[in-house]
Amino acid sequence: MPDGCVFCAIARGDISAEVVFADEIAIAFLDHRPVFKGHCLLAPRGHVATLSDLPTDLIGPYFERAQLLARVVESALEADGTFVAINNKVSQSVAHLHVHVVPRRRKDGLRGFFWPRTKYTGDDEMRSYAERIRSGIDAAR
Amino acid sequence: MPDGCVFCAIARGDISAEVVFADEIAIAFLDHRPVFKGHCLLAPRGHVATLSDLPTDLIGPYFERAQLLARVVESALEADGTFVAINNKVSQSVAHLHVHVVPRRRKDGLRGFFWPRTKYTGDDEMRSYAERIRSGIDAAR
Repeated sequence: MPDGCVFCAIARGDISAEVVFADEIAIAFLDHRPVFKGHCLLAPRGHVATLSDLPTDLIGPYFERAQLLARVVESALEADGTFVAINNKVSQSVAHLHVHVVPRRRKDGLRGFFWPRTKYTGDDEMRSYAERIRSGIDAAR
Repeated sequence: MPDGCVFCAIARGDISAEVVFADEIAIAFLDHRPVFKGHCLLAPRGHVATLSDLPTDLIGPYFERAQLLARVVESALEADGTFVAINNKVSQSVAHLHVHVVPRRRKDGLRGFFWPRTKYTGDDEMRSYAERIRSGIDAAR
């Protein structure tokens, strides 16, 4: 665990936060600068930097808790849906893995991430991207 | 499985797509309107509408594949990081659960989702939101 990790400090209780869930696997608390009110962050209790670093045996337990939190944020806040997101490295404000769970409402104005889209120049370019990823997956398995 | 689900049709092979990964659990393919080129969608092979609907025994296997895809999109496309996101109901273009995996680069201009932020009016309002979510979690477990 790196010195000075804010989320580790919250997990230890050394920094206060509005904790909404905590167990041996993960801790969830309100983001103090919410996209919408009720925006929660779910972090694994042990320090891992990104999704790639999460040990395989924690993936199920961690995302079961993300599912629980998404269900509850939607129902408890009477939202229309949720946005569930992880920034890995780029735009990641704290280098301790965390899932954002944001309550969404229809016409809430959050089109941000999904606009603008870009285009492939054509099928060949699209295929070349797919091929690079397929090769990477073949190499990784 | 609802008639006319585009992702089920892709999983069956009835609609063509640039598939980058497929096994008995999930299928991943390029979004044809990418936020950035290489943007993939990972869908469970069986039809479920949202994260809340994913059966518990599939959570681990499904997100293991999301981890694999995030690792590979980053390495194969020489990206600086990834954005991994799920829209549940609101902004969800196809009502079949899918994880977006988007390659990110520093200064790529995608600040969208994380701006603007809002503020709680004070500690009392923040606590009231936390309390609603805590009560929901207590009721759900």
